[in-house]
Amino acid sequence: MAQSGDERDKAPRTARGERTRRALLAAAAEEFGEKGFHEGSISGITRRAGCALGSFYTYFDTKDDIFRALVADMSGQVRDYVAPRIAQARDGIDAERLGLLSFLEFARGHKEIYRIIDEAEFVDQAAYRNHYESTAARILVRLQEAAARGEVGAEPDEVHAWAIMGMNVFLGLRFGVWDDSRPAEEVAGIVNGLIERGIGASGRD
Amino acid sequence: MAQSGDERDKAPRTARGERTRRALLAAAAEEFGEKGFHEGSISGITRRAGCALGSFYTYFDTKDDIFRALVADMSGQVRDYVAPRIAQARDGIDAERLGLLSFLEFARGHKEIYRIIDEAEFVDQAAYRNHYESTAARILVRLQEAAARGEVGAEPDEVHAWAIMGMNVFLGLRFGVWDDSRPAEEVAGIVNGLIERGIGASGRD
Repeated sequence: MAQSGDERDKAPRTARGERTRRALLAAAAEEFGEKGFHEGSISGITRRAGCALGSFYTYFDTKDDIFRALVADMSGQVRDYVAPRIAQARDGIDAERLGLLSFLEFARGHKEIYRIIDEAEFVDQAAYRNHYESTAARILVRLQEAAARGEVGAEPDEVHAWAIMGMNVFLGLRFGVWDDSRPAEEVAGIVNGLIERGIGASGRD
Repeated sequence: MAQSGDERDKAPRTARGERTRRALLAAAAEEFGEKGFHEGSISGITRRAGCALGSFYTYFDTKDDIFRALVADMSGQVRDYVAPRIAQARDGIDAERLGLLSFLEFARGHKEIYRIIDEAEFVDQAAYRNHYESTAARILVRLQEAAARGEVGAEPDEVHAWAIMGMNVFLGLRFGVWDDSRPAEEVAGIVNGLIERGIGASGRD
């Protein structure tokens, strides 16, 4: 209980505290997204959040600590943005189309996400792996559920999940962050054609 | 001609010079792969290469300069490792199987490649974009040539090229760098089934 940095010690206890913590995370996304982890600073974060330096230490211990929290938070934001869209899918193949479509939308609205998650590879390898491993695990579960319903003909494999995630990550970079001029529906439609024929029930021998 | 840092000024003029430059690049791959760009140092590189500090400045101007050269060099190494394997393909779909297979082999033998190319996103954005844009452009040309031979049924699109590259990058990370216990042939086979049905000539309506 007396362990230093115990998460419970710093978790906000009030709605106002939760708002301040969220403001600090949003400011950290701006600060690290713009300057990177090494050049970014705690004082830059509190300045952007419009709060005192002391408030930072109420919720976080170090720059590493808020960076780790930010990676987990952005990972969760993507998941929470995509999940309700996927829930409206006609079937397991359409779910992957909506997954990419909503991810492209998210990336277009949060262009800093790549810099932050990718920099975790250098700043916090565990957070980086956890983001991708948990994303791939969710895709695999979706494919397995779709296969059980007869909507996926291929035997779902971790390889399929990592392949789909890899497509989405690079399409999000190319058609979300670097150049968002191509309609997201068109990009997601082309990929979904590949996936539908590639692993869909009708595409199998 | 008098421009500082003009590449021609520092290009090796002898075979011995070329060997020293290559030894410095190999040492830089170790140094940056292990410590990252920020912690890595020129003296660490010359120590690993077993050469004098002066030799470094014969071929490179700065730490940024050798990092940029290293990204271009690793990008070229992947291309040169994969190209002859692809040239042996039965057809355009098999070419993508051999592309992934040989990339998995390369990643298993050069596990530092991800740290180096990914860190370019922060150290040298132009080198980072150039690596992925040129890789995707090569894939698109392969798909277009295969389509012209009737081996690809879908109309090749930049989206297909980025999707295939994205799969390969993440499968290389997961099954090449993080855990190389699964046979590369098996991983490449599963993905190629998806691609063959997804965009192959027989998979089309």
